[in-house]
Amino acid sequence: MRATPPYVPGEQPKAGAQVIKLNTNENPYPPSPRVLDAMGRGLAETLRLYPDPDATALRRRAASVYGVPVDSILVGNGSDELLSLLVRAVVDPGGAVAYPVPTYSLYRTLVDLHEARAVEVPFPGDWRLPPALAEVEASLTFLCNPNAPSGTVVPIAQIAELARRVHGVLVVDEAYVDFAADHALRLLPDYPNVVVLRTLSKSFSLAGLRVGLAFAHPDLIDGLRTVKDSYNVNRLTQLGAEAALGDLPVMERNVERIRATRTVLIAELEQLGFTVPPSEANFVLARRAGRSMAPVAGALAARGILVRHFAVPGLDDALRITVGTDEEIAAFLAALRAVLAGG
Amino acid sequence: MRATPPYVPGEQPKAGAQVIKLNTNENPYPPSPRVLDAMGRGLAETLRLYPDPDATALRRRAASVYGVPVDSILVGNGSDELLSLLVRAVVDPGGAVAYPVPTYSLYRTLVDLHEARAVEVPFPGDWRLPPALAEVEASLTFLCNPNAPSGTVVPIAQIAELARRVHGVLVVDEAYVDFAADHALRLLPDYPNVVVLRTLSKSFSLAGLRVGLAFAHPDLIDGLRTVKDSYNVNRLTQLGAEAALGDLPVMERNVERIRATRTVLIAELEQLGFTVPPSEANFVLARRAGRSMAPVAGALAARGILVRHFAVPGLDDALRITVGTDEEIAAFLAALRAVLAGG
Repeated sequence: MRATPPYVPGEQPKAGAQVIKLNTNENPYPPSPRVLDAMGRGLAETLRLYPDPDATALRRRAASVYGVPVDSILVGNGSDELLSLLVRAVVDPGGAVAYPVPTYSLYRTLVDLHEARAVEVPFPGDWRLPPALAEVEASLTFLCNPNAPSGTVVPIAQIAELARRVHGVLVVDEAYVDFAADHALRLLPDYPNVVVLRTLSKSFSLAGLRVGLAFAHPDLIDGLRTVKDSYNVNRLTQLGAEAALGDLPVMERNVERIRATRTVLIAELEQLGFTVPPSEANFVLARRAGRSMAPVAGALAARGILVRHFAVPGLDDALRITVGTDEEIAAFLAALRAVLAGG
Repeated sequence: MRATPPYVPGEQPKAGAQVIKLNTNENPYPPSPRVLDAMGRGLAETLRLYPDPDATALRRRAASVYGVPVDSILVGNGSDELLSLLVRAVVDPGGAVAYPVPTYSLYRTLVDLHEARAVEVPFPGDWRLPPALAEVEASLTFLCNPNAPSGTVVPIAQIAELARRVHGVLVVDEAYVDFAADHALRLLPDYPNVVVLRTLSKSFSLAGLRVGLAFAHPDLIDGLRTVKDSYNVNRLTQLGAEAALGDLPVMERNVERIRATRTVLIAELEQLGFTVPPSEANFVLARRAGRSMAPVAGALAARGILVRHFAVPGLDDALRITVGTDEEIAAFLAALRAVLAGG
C-alpha cells in the first residue's frame, strides 16, 4: 500500500443540517431546468445498458458550444478524473510536475500517488505568474486559472508565453473561468502541448453530476482516452451535461448574479480590514496578515456558516469564502462582524 | 505518452439502431422501479452540491444487505474503477499481477497502464483453477468468478485455499455472482488479503448507472480510498444504487428468468454441435473446436444480432452470448441455425 496523504475535500454537511455552505465553491443557484427534463426522460428510457464510452452526443454539443473539434474533446467523471488521467498518461514515475502554489491541493495528491516529483513554485505576493515556473524541466505543468484559493488570473498572453517555454504539457485548469473575463481555449490551435480543463460543477451548478471536459490536440486526447475507464461517464450524466451546454443563458444569468454579489462581498470584507486579491472566480480569499483565521472559521461554523480555512503555511491567516446568494453573504457578513467583535 | 493498447469494450450500437444486443452481458430486464423513483426524487432536489465522497447511505445499505461492516466497503464508479484503484494502490511499478486466462481483458490493460508485469496462467481445458496461479510471487492476483468469458466457477473452498497461498492481495471479481450458486463474501473475516468486487451492472440491470462495490478488510479499503477521486460517484447514482439494494426481489426475479433461459440456450447450442462449459453467469461460451467463429459473428451482426467474438488465440473458435429474453434467444438461435446452414 502506498502512504500518500489523501486529498481532503471541503466538508459536506449531512442531509438535513441547516447550514450556509460557503466552503466548496458550489453555485447557490439551480441548474437549467432542461437538465432535469433531459435526465428525467433518460430515467424513463433505460439504465440497463452501458453508456456510450465516447460520450458522442455530449462531445458534439461541447464542440459546437466551444468551437473546438470533436476529436479534441474528452469527457471525464468530473475534472478531478481528468487531472488524474493527465498525470498517469503524461508523467513517468519519478518525472517532474510543476505548478505555482498555493493552488488546488489535489495536484500535489495526484503527483504523490503517481510517485512523481512535485516542483512547487511560490506565487509572489501579488499572485502574478512566477517566472521560474517555465524553467522547471517538467513533463507536466499545472496552472489553475482563475487560481484557487486566490481567485486571481494570469492574462492569456502570459499563458501563451508559458506554453511556448515549458518543456512538456501545460494544463490550464479553467474550473472557474466562466466567472472571469477571458479564457485560454483560443490557444489550442497554436499550442499542441496545451490542455484546457473545464467543469460543469461551478458555473453550470452541477457539482453533484460529475462532468469535466478536456480540450487539447487530438493526439493528447487519444493518450488520455487510453488511460480512462471505458464507461467513466454514466448515461444520465451524459444527457444532463448535454442539456446544460444547450442552455447557456441560465448559466450566464447565474454567473452575472454571482459576480454582482462578489463585488459587494469584496467591498465589505475590505471595510472589515481584510485584504482581498482581485477575484475572477466564485469565491474570494480574505486575509488578515499574520492573524490566524482558524478560530474565526471555527466560530462561524458554530453559527452554522461553513467557509474554508487552510491550516497550511501562507494561508493560515486567510479564509476562502464561496460567493453565495445575496442573503447568504449578508448572513455571513453579519456573523463575521459578530465573531470579529468577539461576540 | 504511454503506448498501451486500450481495453476494447463490446460495441454499443448508436441510438435508434434495431439490434438484439447479446454482446456486453447486460440484463434484458429493467431495474427495480424504486431505482427510478429514488433518482427522480433526487433530480427534484439538488444537483448543485457535491456528492457525499463516502457514499455513506449507500454503504450502510450495502452493509445491511451483505452482512459486511460499513468500513469494509468502498463504492466505485463501476467495478472497472475499483479494479484500476486496486492496481494503483497495491502494485508497485514493475510488480507482478497474476490471473488465469482467458479472462476479463481489462486486467491486462490495467497492468500494462501501470507498467506492472502481467503473469498470465492458462486455465486448463476444463476451466479448473490452475494450481500454478498460487505459485506466482504476485502483489495482486485476480480471479474472475464466475469467469468471463467462460461462465465457469471455481468452488469457494478452492478460493479460500488460494487466498492462503498467494503472496499478496487476492481479488475475487464477482461481477456475475448473483447468477451463480455460491459466493466468496464469507471469506472476508478470515482473509484480510481478500477483496470481493460486486457490480450493479449485471444482476441489478444498472450498467448505465456505474456502480461497483469493493468488500475487504478496513485497512485495504482505506488504501483504496486514498487513491480514489473524492467525488467518484455522483449524487443520483448513490440514490439509485441504494434503492436497488433495497429491492432485492426484483433482481432475484430477473436472475431466475435469466437462469431459466440460460438452461434452454445451452441445450440448444449443444444440439447444434457447440461445446458449452457449465455457465453460472448471464452469458455462455459456445465453442466449435478449431472453426473460427469470426464469420459467424459477422453474419449474425448482419442480421442485427450482436454477440461477442474475441479474435485472440484460444477463443477464435468460440462465441460469447449474453442470455437475453426468451424471445431474443429464440431469434438468436434461429439466426444461428440459418447462418450455420449457410443461409
